[in-house]
Amino acid sequence: MEPRISFVTLGVRDFERARRFYRDGLGWPLSSGSNDEVAFFRTGGAILALWSRELLAADANVSSEGSGFPGFALAHNVPNKEDVDAVLARAAAAGATILKPGSDAVWGGYTGYFADPDGFPWEVAWNPHFPLGPDGAVQLPG
Amino acid sequence: MEPRISFVTLGVRDFERARRFYRDGLGWPLSSGSNDEVAFFRTGGAILALWSRELLAADANVSSEGSGFPGFALAHNVPNKEDVDAVLARAAAAGATILKPGSDAVWGGYTGYFADPDGFPWEVAWNPHFPLGPDGAVQLPG
Repeated sequence: MEPRISFVTLGVRDFERARRFYRDGLGWPLSSGSNDEVAFFRTGGAILALWSRELLAADANVSSEGSGFPGFALAHNVPNKEDVDAVLARAAAAGATILKPGSDAVWGGYTGYFADPDGFPWEVAWNPHFPLGPDGAVQLPG
Repeated sequence: MEPRISFVTLGVRDFERARRFYRDGLGWPLSSGSNDEVAFFRTGGAILALWSRELLAADANVSSEGSGFPGFALAHNVPNKEDVDAVLARAAAAGATILKPGSDAVWGGYTGYFADPDGFPWEVAWNPHFPLGPDGAVQLPG
């Protein structure tokens, strides 16, 4: 199995609200391949998809019952330390909840977290140990 | 905020088990930037990270309490229809639970789902409408 995440699909409770947050609030580019049930956002890497929580669970053949911490987080890394607070402010203005304001991390970086309208956690991080490449992607050591 | 997912971090209940599944079972390349607490896998796009569920929740400043459907799914798209069953078989051999065997989708593709050792759902998909580029990434329409 090749090492690749093609899509990250968030199962959302209010599709319109989620699409508005990512498209209008954060300004992400909505693909014309989207429709009234699913939204695909073009990114530099893994595509972000929004879909009904119920339909996603049904598609995966599991119960949609569940609550609390979803057990995962997405991260958005930025090239400069000061970009962290700027992105958190943008997300907050778009309706996100700030879970943790930007602060110095023990490992030498600077990070904060926001939750999207469904509560999915996003870390916004500046990591001086993992620089970004020309395409904006994190360059991991081999 | 640029449209980019830098990392997908899975908060796992048994770090050794999860690392073994992705590294040895699926054969994903572990970065030397990893350590005994966190594992980073080099991919074509968003980096997959494994970390303790408790530590991830604490980092995000939220309670780690939660159960049931996590509300999201990752997808791994493959270039050919027959690759879906091959990847599902590889995952099953590595200890994954098959949630849904490969089957024809109403939208014209062929997909199945497996759950990793923590129950996180992965879709394995062949989608003739969204071809893969030379780097293996899905090419979304603009």
